[in-house]
Amino acid sequence: MGDVEKTLLEETAAWVDEARAKTERTKKPWGVWIDAELGLRNHWYPAALSRDVEDGGFQGITLLGEDILLARQGGRLFALEDRCPHRGVRFSARPLCYTPETLTCWYHTLTFNLDDGELRTILNEPDSPLIGKLRIKSYPLEERKGIVFVFVGDVAAPPLEHDVAPGLLDDDAVVYCADPYVIEANWRLACENGYDPGHQFIHNWSPFSVKNGIPMSFGWVSNQESVLRTTHYVDDDDGPKGFTRKAAETNIVQEARIPMRDGSVVDVTLPAAEGKTPEELREIAEYAHSCEVGLWMPCMLKVEPWPAEPCIHFEAYVPRDEGSHTYFQFGVMKTRDTAEADAWMNGRAREEWEIPTVEDFTIDDAFARKELQKFYGEEDGWLRERLYRPDIELTMWRKFVTKHARGVQTRDHARGYFPR
Amino acid sequence: MGDVEKTLLEETAAWVDEARAKTERTKKPWGVWIDAELGLRNHWYPAALSRDVEDGGFQGITLLGEDILLARQGGRLFALEDRCPHRGVRFSARPLCYTPETLTCWYHTLTFNLDDGELRTILNEPDSPLIGKLRIKSYPLEERKGIVFVFVGDVAAPPLEHDVAPGLLDDDAVVYCADPYVIEANWRLACENGYDPGHQFIHNWSPFSVKNGIPMSFGWVSNQESVLRTTHYVDDDDGPKGFTRKAAETNIVQEARIPMRDGSVVDVTLPAAEGKTPEELREIAEYAHSCEVGLWMPCMLKVEPWPAEPCIHFEAYVPRDEGSHTYFQFGVMKTRDTAEADAWMNGRAREEWEIPTVEDFTIDDAFARKELQKFYGEEDGWLRERLYRPDIELTMWRKFVTKHARGVQTRDHARGYFPR
Amino acid sequence: MGDVEKTLLEETAAWVDEARAKTERTKKPWGVWIDAELGLRNHWYPAALSRDVEDGGFQGITLLGEDILLARQGGRLFALEDRCPHRGVRFSARPLCYTPETLTCWYHTLTFNLDDGELRTILNEPDSPLIGKLRIKSYPLEERKGIVFVFVGDVAAPPLEHDVAPGLLDDDAVVYCADPYVIEANWRLACENGYDPGHQFIHNWSPFSVKNGIPMSFGWVSNQESVLRTTHYVDDDDGPKGFTRKAAETNIVQEARIPMRDGSVVDVTLPAAEGKTPEELREIAEYAHSCEVGLWMPCMLKVEPWPAEPCIHFEAYVPRDEGSHTYFQFGVMKTRDTAEADAWMNGRAREEWEIPTVEDFTIDDAFARKELQKFYGEEDGWLRERLYRPDIELTMWRKFVTKHARGVQTRDHARGYFPR
Repeated sequence: MGDVEKTLLEETAAWVDEARAKTERTKKPWGVWIDAELGLRNHWYPAALSRDVEDGGFQGITLLGEDILLARQGGRLFALEDRCPHRGVRFSARPLCYTPETLTCWYHTLTFNLDDGELRTILNEPDSPLIGKLRIKSYPLEERKGIVFVFVGDVAAPPLEHDVAPGLLDDDAVVYCADPYVIEANWRLACENGYDPGHQFIHNWSPFSVKNGIPMSFGWVSNQESVLRTTHYVDDDDGPKGFTRKAAETNIVQEARIPMRDGSVVDVTLPAAEGKTPEELREIAEYAHSCEVGLWMPCMLKVEPWPAEPCIHFEAYVPRDEGSHTYFQFGVMKTRDTAEADAWMNGRAREEWEIPTVEDFTIDDAFARKELQKFYGEEDGWLRERLYRPDIELTMWRKFVTKHARGVQTRDHARGYFPR
Repeated sequence: MGDVEKTLLEETAAWVDEARAKTERTKKPWGVWIDAELGLRNHWYPAALSRDVEDGGFQGITLLGEDILLARQGGRLFALEDRCPHRGVRFSARPLCYTPETLTCWYHTLTFNLDDGELRTILNEPDSPLIGKLRIKSYPLEERKGIVFVFVGDVAAPPLEHDVAPGLLDDDAVVYCADPYVIEANWRLACENGYDPGHQFIHNWSPFSVKNGIPMSFGWVSNQESVLRTTHYVDDDDGPKGFTRKAAETNIVQEARIPMRDGSVVDVTLPAAEGKTPEELREIAEYAHSCEVGLWMPCMLKVEPWPAEPCIHFEAYVPRDEGSHTYFQFGVMKTRDTAEADAWMNGRAREEWEIPTVEDFTIDDAFARKELQKFYGEEDGWLRERLYRPDIELTMWRKFVTKHARGVQTRDHARGYFPR
Repeated sequence: MGDVEKTLLEETAAWVDEARAKTERTKKPWGVWIDAELGLRNHWYPAALSRDVEDGGFQGITLLGEDILLARQGGRLFALEDRCPHRGVRFSARPLCYTPETLTCWYHTLTFNLDDGELRTILNEPDSPLIGKLRIKSYPLEERKGIVFVFVGDVAAPPLEHDVAPGLLDDDAVVYCADPYVIEANWRLACENGYDPGHQFIHNWSPFSVKNGIPMSFGWVSNQESVLRTTHYVDDDDGPKGFTRKAAETNIVQEARIPMRDGSVVDVTLPAAEGKTPEELREIAEYAHSCEVGLWMPCMLKVEPWPAEPCIHFEAYVPRDEGSHTYFQFGVMKTRDTAEADAWMNGRAREEWEIPTVEDFTIDDAFARKELQKFYGEEDGWLRERLYRPDIELTMWRKFVTKHARGVQTRDHARGYFPR
């Protein structure tokens, strides 16, 4: 056998190995989760804030890799594929609406219906046979509580409520929206960090903890029986899908020790716990016990109450591309009292929720997500991670998503290969 | 059938699909155009301005992916491969000419003939057997009208005139050169934008139009018969190859309307047309009708007159690499009158051509080319574009190039794999 | 045969060609050198300076693509894989040592032995079955002369002295360390530039030469017999491996001429040689003749004396990743006299070695290495270079390494795929 033949043989072997590896990957009981690098298709997502698209205004966004133009005309908001089918330029580069019903391409005057994306006319070629045939993708859209939700998919859009954590859209929910921002980490890492009971440890470095002298524990840990008892699955056909964890039975680990080589033991104290009496620590833990944390498909977390009554915290990790997500955070109070609602929106939410949470707390979550990205994004971490017992709550989520996801987004979708 | 076998089968199917896709691509009647990402090989190109390579000076440039050193020594200009064959460093990093006949590598003293690239000596090893055998590529070069033209290819270079739009090199052409600059878009997108009759619409936003209150139309549109009548093909064996379009029969679209859902119609007015009488608009169109636009191989556009008599505008989109081209622009007046020529070069060209054209007009072409790049460079736009009727003039060009190109540049050429 | 079949056939042919090319590459007598893009595995490397890791301090470094955390605790220095096996985050992002024996992950409190990398406990899950089983890679480490040496490999680490140029670790060596810095060039290019006898030419532009009026020659060139006589191979099993060249018989080329087309000859003078008498030039050459240059595995160069008695210059080109290395430089004087040693460390080394060498001389080596990177890193220069006679000393080195390397580093190692 010659050199070339030998090399070919070796390369074929390598190819089979690779194919086998892919098979093993798919065999993981949470295969959809591993594949969903660009997000879950056929779901609703927070896409922008209403206040960022004024009447007559535009915003170009990237959602699950798809470039989308938001345009508000004549008081109505529309979401369209941000790519002219003629020669592919982005409308958002120089957006033009000559009427409240239409979007005109700045390059060759192709003019599309804002509502369904169909080519209505071409200003310089009004008799074109393409009119009425060519179309761009238009996205189902709902605007609620100051949030623009967009549906990314090909199937008939289910009710928006099916893809939003319970409570956010309730009539009595007064929603204060923080400015969303982009984080250079895959969206799945954000979901997992947010729900991860062990991640509390990172918040010992958050300004919130340092400023207020509140130790954040070494992690929240539940045993398996407690997880079963305190986790509440919700997967009705007609409603949001997700699950919640009551912290009531969770072990808020406030004490830790390290065994030394010489048989002695070193007690480890959290900086903010220094000087606190056992009673004070118990009080802090008790507050934590009152929290309920929920993770909802496709990518929303709810913590109630947070950081304190009467506030409920919602956040969403919206897939942008393989290496980044947009981070939305909402501070919610429930009331039908107009005066209370006004007070929340015009001062209290800022003081009681945005400063302690958005500015002083979740910045450490953003930090942790970014730190996960190298391993999961470049080093095949999804196959090499070595999970430990508390991670059971994450694998539950992965399997839950694998079971209930309506689809997986691919790069082809992002490039515009979707049914027209 | 096991999992591995199944995966292999699926992958093989994917491979066949991919192969089939390539076949379809090649089947397009303008296959050469699609393949010519790095430019057309065996053609002449504007490479630099004479004034940018003073005597004793150097300029390192990239042309069709090839790194080239321009050196002027003893009053003569040379173009050589900018890569020492010994260990690959660029001469331009520290260019050295110890004699008017030679270029010496700054690293190991290999010394090449400036004229033919042959290794003449090695300063520290003058008896090397490589002398007279090793050589770098030397490029045919002509300097005309203040422009350095370089021939990139392997065949005998045809006369320069064959690759330049008619008129530019004429004895009575007085050529004022603007500073060239790099644009992050493939060169083919520049060619197509420049000749595209529909692209006029983008210039409604150009400072030229806004400042002077000249509406730029919704596009120039010809019907097929008119295109046949007014397009003049030039493909003599002994001369430049290209074609020109007389705008005389072109429909300069100045009026447009959008049909509304309720049966009404919205008239669209160009900002600069606002308040203009039909007569004024007719006058503007008439001027446009007097223009002749020509596209010439490999990559030069000519507009005559532009922006007004007596000026002729030439521009070239010189391939740099897959994602960028160098944009050359020349403002030309025809005269044999020395005083007139001087006036042109020392003031009039600046006022009558460079400011209105280079500074206030073609910046929007640069913008449009860059906007095309994502679709054509990353999203396979060449296969997915949906052309409309006026694009016939572009596909004529694509087919013309496919027929007349002397070759297609590849990455291997750029890496130095050319006959030595 | 259909189009698809034809394409498949062509692609298969291309595949065979590629396989054949790889075979040819491996056939080069210095195959290991060509493959060792990420460095030689199973060797010791300078990794940091002692002064840059204070007690209680940390430094995250990249060595042969591997992310490593250096930590000094309780006066002991440790080197550990900088990647938590749980979810892959880098410890160095927020390094934590709660005891002098342990490193705790900032994310989930996994706590590892600093000395052997074994998981000792998890602060929030002290009963985890992973304890005592999971481990991160710990690296053999030695700290000598203010330099932290780390062993990167899987085999039992040989004595450090086997991987260091002779003399550096001697009891009477007083070692002054310059601040290391990163250079964007593969480490092999640095080795070759450093030992390359022809590279002296580049130093005619170094501030050292210009300031002191010392012409640096057109290159040092030996003939083959002289190389055999003056090169001293050292490959004892029990000691460092490398070889040295005595410059005594080297031709320090100070005169050069270029033959002209008309039969005349142009003498070339080095700028700093201008106005120098032959005697002065002879003196400079004589000094050079007294130098001994040695290259030692895995990546260290020694020049003695340099830049002048009593100083010995050492430098190391430590692989960082495929496209960069860390450049270490050491100025050494031999003495057991404490006062002399102090004078060296506190003033003389700075004046007599660091300023003339690090600041005014080797910056041109850094320049040359970076200029080599495009050809060797992107253009397959290893297979296309056209070596000339003086390069025999480089190919000797390549073959020497191919014979004596203990292993080749791969990307899989860098990603953490090493025996645990």
